[in-house]
Parts: sequence; C-alpha cells; structure tokens
Amino acid sequence: MTYRMVDLIQKKRDGGIFSKAEIDWMIENYVAGIVPDYQMSALAMAIYFKGMTTEETAHLTMAMVASGKQIDLSSISGVKVDKHSTGGVGDKVTLILAPLVASFGVPVAKMSGRGLGHTGGTLDKLESIPGFKIEKSIPDFIAQVKNIGLSVIGQSDDLVKADKLLYALRDVTATVDIIPLIASSVMSKKIAAGSNAILLDVTVGDGAFMKNIDDARILARTMVDLGKAVGRQTVAVLTNMNQPLGLAIGNRNEITEAVNTLNGKGSKDFREFIAELAQLMLELAGLEKTIPEILEHLDNGSAYTKFKEMIIAQSGDPTAFENLTEPLNTKYTVGIKAEQAGYIAEEKAYNIGVLAMKLGAGRATKSDKIDFEAGITLSKKVGEAVKIGDTIAELYSNNPITAELIAEFKKSLVITNEAVHQKEILEVVR
Amino acid sequence: MTYRMVDLIQKKRDGGIFSKAEIDWMIENYVAGIVPDYQMSALAMAIYFKGMTTEETAHLTMAMVASGKQIDLSSISGVKVDKHSTGGVGDKVTLILAPLVASFGVPVAKMSGRGLGHTGGTLDKLESIPGFKIEKSIPDFIAQVKNIGLSVIGQSDDLVKADKLLYALRDVTATVDIIPLIASSVMSKKIAAGSNAILLDVTVGDGAFMKNIDDARILARTMVDLGKAVGRQTVAVLTNMNQPLGLAIGNRNEITEAVNTLNGKGSKDFREFIAELAQLMLELAGLEKTIPEILEHLDNGSAYTKFKEMIIAQSGDPTAFENLTEPLNTKYTVGIKAEQAGYIAEEKAYNIGVLAMKLGAGRATKSDKIDFEAGITLSKKVGEAVKIGDTIAELYSNNPITAELIAEFKKSLVITNEAVHQKEILEVVR
Repeated sequence: MTYRMVDLIQKKRDGGIFSKAEIDWMIENYVAGIVPDYQMSALAMAIYFKGMTTEETAHLTMAMVASGKQIDLSSISGVKVDKHSTGGVGDKVTLILAPLVASFGVPVAKMSGRGLGHTGGTLDKLESIPGFKIEKSIPDFIAQVKNIGLSVIGQSDDLVKADKLLYALRDVTATVDIIPLIASSVMSKKIAAGSNAILLDVTVGDGAFMKNIDDARILARTMVDLGKAVGRQTVAVLTNMNQPLGLAIGNRNEITEAVNTLNGKGSKDFREFIAELAQLMLELAGLEKTIPEILEHLDNGSAYTKFKEMIIAQSGDPTAFENLTEPLNTKYTVGIKAEQAGYIAEEKAYNIGVLAMKLGAGRATKSDKIDFEAGITLSKKVGEAVKIGDTIAELYSNNPITAELIAEFKKSLVITNEAVHQKEILEVVR
Repeated sequence: MTYRMVDLIQKKRDGGIFSKAEIDWMIENYVAGIVPDYQMSALAMAIYFKGMTTEETAHLTMAMVASGKQIDLSSISGVKVDKHSTGGVGDKVTLILAPLVASFGVPVAKMSGRGLGHTGGTLDKLESIPGFKIEKSIPDFIAQVKNIGLSVIGQSDDLVKADKLLYALRDVTATVDIIPLIASSVMSKKIAAGSNAILLDVTVGDGAFMKNIDDARILARTMVDLGKAVGRQTVAVLTNMNQPLGLAIGNRNEITEAVNTLNGKGSKDFREFIAELAQLMLELAGLEKTIPEILEHLDNGSAYTKFKEMIIAQSGDPTAFENLTEPLNTKYTVGIKAEQAGYIAEEKAYNIGVLAMKLGAGRATKSDKIDFEAGITLSKKVGEAVKIGDTIAELYSNNPITAELIAEFKKSLVITNEAVHQKEILEVVR
C-alpha cells in the first residue's frame, strides 16, 4: 500500500486515527529520505494538537524500532533490566545503579545515548576513566555481560534510526513536548536495546519535559503500557525535580559522589533514592530485596567491586579513583550564602543543571568541550534548616563567575519558614 | 532584532500573537533561505489551529509584498482596477471582463499567475493565440495600458517571492485551507501588482477552498479589510460553485465562448454574471453604469474591439478567431443523457473542472501538456428542465472516455423534482 504524505498530514490535522500500515509507511519513507522533513514537522505539529491513541503510539514505537538494528540479548541467561531517565540533573545515577543491581546477579546490559546534557552524560563520565572504552561490538558487549553481569556502552548509531532524525527535527520545530512522541522515542530505544524489563524515571517539575504530575503520570502510563504490550515488564517512577540528586553537579564532582556512594559513603537521601530504584529493578528481575539488604551492597563493597570489574573489562584503569578526594581544581570559586534564615524548600534541579552547564560542566551544542572540573557542590538540601550566612553551595568554574550566574543560583533557591518534607520518588506507575 | 524560529513557532502554537517585527523577521529570513521549510511548515500547521488576528494578517501581507518587487502604476492616469478569483472553473472570465471594463475607459493592467488549473489558465488561453506575447517588461506593460487602456501579462517572478515559496510548501503539508494565509497570499500579490482597486471573487462550495458561505464571508471580509487598510479600494463577491460558469469548459471551448460573449452571443446567465462583475469594477473606478449599459458594450462590439486591440498590441494575430465556430476536434466524444426527468439542481463546478482536466484540458502537474481541444460543453444548466434522454453535456477527449469518467460527470449532477432558482453572486462584501 502506498500513501500521499499530504493526505496523512491532513488526516491527523482533522482528528483522524492512523492505521498500522499508514504509520509503517510514514516512518519507512521518512528514514529513506522520501518523506521530507517539512512534511514530518507539519505532521508533528498536527499531533501536538490532535494527539495519538495508545494504539497509534504503539504502532509508531514499533515502526521506529523496525527502522534500525535490534539487539538480541537472549543468549544471556536471566532477566535483563534496563533503566531510562527522561532528564534528571546528575547522570551519575547509572554509574551507581547499574553495578548495584548487577551485584545481585541480575545482568545489566545498558546502552547510553550521548545527547546534550547539563553536565556531561554517563558516557562522558566513563570516558574520563583512563583507557575506558565505551565502544564495543555487540558480540563483545554480550560476552562481557555473560562474563561479569554488567556492561555500559555507547548507543549504536544503527539503533532506531527514525528517532535520531525525528528528535533533531522536533527540537527545532517546537514539537518536543508531545507525550506520544516522547513515549515512542524513549520506548523504541529501550525495546531495540533488547532488555526484558525496563525501569523508567519520569522527572517532574518546572524544567522537566513534564511540568506537572498529571502529565508525568500520563507519560509514565503510556510508556508502561507500551512496554507491556510488546512483552517487556515495565515500571515507571515519577521523580521530583525540585532539587538535584545528591550533592554534586559536574563531572569529576559527580564521579566522586558516585564512587563515594558505591563505597558506602553517600549522603543519606541519595543512598535511599538509589536503593529504591534498585529495589524496583530487582523486582522486575524477580528478586525481592529490602532497602537494608540493598544498602548493604553499598556498604560491604559488593557494588564497588562490580563497578571495578566493569572498568577492567572495558580496558579502564581501576586505580583512577585514588585521587578523587582532592578538592575541585578551578580558577574561580564562589560560595553561595543564605541571605535569610529558614528551611530550604526548593533548589530547582533544572535551573541548577543549566547553571552548571554555563560554568563549563556541560554542552550547549554538540561540539562544545566539557570542563571536567567545573560544577556545583550543594551543602544544604531541601528540608534542611539554614541561618543567615550559612553556605548553601559552592560554584566552580575556569571562567569568571559573574553576578548574573550567582543570581541564577539564587533564583533557583526557595527558603521558607516551615520545614518541607521532601520525597524524591513521588509515585510508582506499574 | 533577531529571533529564534523555534521560539516563534512555539509562541504561535501556544496561542501567542506575533508583532510586526517578528513577522518581518520570519518572512525575510524564510525568503533568504535561513529559516528552513521544515520550520515554516510547522508554523503553518500551528496557524491552522491557532489562527492569526487581523493585525497579524495585515503585517504578514505587507511583509510578503516587501519580499519582492512592487509595480508602480501611478504614471497611468485614472483608477486602475484589478480582479482575482480564488478558484473558479473557467478562467475565461478575465478574457471577457478585462476588455469589457477597459471599453469604458477604465485602465486594466492585469498580471495573471500561471498555477495549476482544471483547465489551462488565462495565460494558456492567451498563448494559444498565434504570436501573442504574455511576457512584457514592466515599462512596456505600462506603456500599453497608457496607450490602449488594457494589458494582460504573466506575473513577474520577482513579485511576492515569499508567496511562491510558501504556497508550494502549504500545498504539500495540508496547510492550504487557512483563511489568514489564503488572504495574505491573494492580497500580497494584488497589492504588489499596483492597481488602486481590487475586485475579489471568492468561490463557495464543495470543491472550493471555502466549503461554506460562513467561511467564504470571513475570507472575503479579511481580504477587503486588508485591501482597505493599505489604501486599496476592495470589494469581494461570494460566488456559487454549484455549476461551472457559462457552458464551456476546456481551452478552445472556453476561448470560443469568451469570444462569442464579447460579440454579444453569450448565454444569458453568463452575460449577466460578467455584467455584474463589470459593474462592481466600474464602481470601484468611480463609474456608475447600469447592467443594460454594460451589456450594450458586449452587443455593440466595444468590448470585442478592445480585446482585439490588446491582441495586436501584444503581437497576436487578431484573425485567429475566425475558425472558432468549428466543432471541437477530438478522437472521442460522449454525450451525457438525462436518466431521470426533472430540473437540474447542481452541476458541481469543481468536480466537472477536475473531470475536464482528466479529459486532457488541464494540468495535474506543472509539466503536463494541455490538450487544446479537450473539454466539456454543457447544454443544460441549473434551473433548466430535462426529460429522460435529453443531452445534458458532451465530453471531448483524445483519450478513450472510460465508464469511470462518465460516472464522475453523473456524480456531479443533481436532478430534482422542483425547479431550483440559481444565483451566481450570493453576496457582495464591501
């Protein structure tokens, strides 16, 4: 069957529902360069206004999966569990969570995308380990997971070709924040990557894709249903973006915090957040573990040992972490002091992430270089009391830290008279 | 001031209203190739859903005018009157109306666009006159209007560059039927073409841009206000598309009817329709004429004389019409007979226009050749009584006339038990 793209655009514009054949045709021909960007962007805008049904979204997701290579992990025994975040500040979560879960014998075969980030992504952080290889052939990747139960590599360019094109287009045509398109983008990549089970972290807040919990819930529900419909056990957590995860934002800063956390020296709230995510991933793999049992793997070195096994298996130098305790080494440092007494109510994660990027820790465009030392260290977090003059955070940069940058931090900060009880995980959607 | 197109798309998507500066920036950069098609098409789709205010539409129109050359007709004395149709079946109207109005001493300096049509356009019909030149320099064009009061030439490529790009894009992205974009497209061309007054023919019906009279009224009002806002006297008529204009559809067929009508031998309803349009154009030029006074110029040869003056001035052979009375010369002819008795209630103009194109009279794509002889001749029109077996129309083609083509004519035909009173001009919007 063949179609005219202009008719399909009009169909959606007028509220029509696409058949599987129509969606397959569209994605195939878009990836083949036959349907041009200017038709796809008009369609995306029509979808913004008219939406897509659950069925259409499922067809779109599978058409996108079919647009590239699919990884077959079936030769690895056990339930393979993957994890994805829709955009948290601090990509260090994977660095801790993957070895922690693997330390329970659950195989983790994870591909990370590069993308833009407020701080460098997981791949940037792994690459900073001398010798560490993030590129592996699929057979080598699978062999490593069979051998040590863990591998984190860069996402192959051959996976979900349609998503690469579509995402770049949506980014410049004001069609990013469309739930069915976000859902199909995330889930197509997770499905193509081959794990049996998927934990999704859907961030909620001002600067996240999802501004409010209702939208976040819809996105989570859409993705969980999509995963289940194609036989992948899927669970989503809605997480609060009203503060960054942990205390560190930046590259060396986050690696240090990750390694400390893997060694049992993480901050209490961050350890517990990681343990809750690990509990859900283990549950997806059929393992029931309590939070204390999971924290034990951070305290007794099991998780850190698994992390070092992965570094060695991917040609990295496991001694690279010995000097991590040295302070960040940048030309400029500014301490942010409390200007009023009270309780920290918000440290808006997205804004602080963008600020860290401006300090040099992240990329504004794909060709930007990351400053490994730049970043932000928080000393007070949501719920904590502050007196006037208490240090709330330190900013680190190799460029002068202007008054505007300092003002940006202060704008992200909310101090109230009453203590705020903070929950990282707002809801679990199964 | 500079903008990011993605922000402007989002602004419209979220219901915002553009400033003049934003619209100017967008059109300038689109024509310069800096804003790509895929952003413009997403914007057009956002406009489909969110609309544009009268003020935005006016800014857009003037930004489009500024994107190309503007013709200065001020050296021609008198009020210059232009005319535009949003898509009638039978482009012959201009062939009759322009010389008829000019025969009253009102200068007509008209540029016709080429475009696609169910039958060849005005330019195709003029070009079929041996030697006739539709390309003239602007000074020669103006000199001819000064000399004989009439010239019809092809629209210069330099006029309204933005419209050319935008129209081609809208055509393939399901963003054609958007009132502010139709209005700015039409009016920018008319304003750039330099006449002081404009008569707009807004067609209404199934196959027209405007499906119903309410939309047509909004489009007409928008365009009339746009024209007035920039100092062009503008009047619109809403015309019924429930049947073609006159009896002939096709190229030689329509030229024959045009020449006959210019010679006082037109059918009654068609003569009156033309006279009503002429009356409005003359009124715009400040001349009050009755319908009988105008018909007199068809009957006494004044209009035909003016037409021949134009042909000579544009190097055409004025004797070309001598053999026009011969029947159409095609390999295949099929007569359509009434299958029930009653009164003709509809002969859907758009469908019959498309059928004429399929018979060979028009272009489906720009590279198609026009068959000069192919077409349709109606012998019964809306309101007339028919008995079973009466011939309603003859189809002419150089390709076999299939049963499907015949069925298409029959689907366009509605016969009722009671006589229908037919009005060509439904309303005048001033």
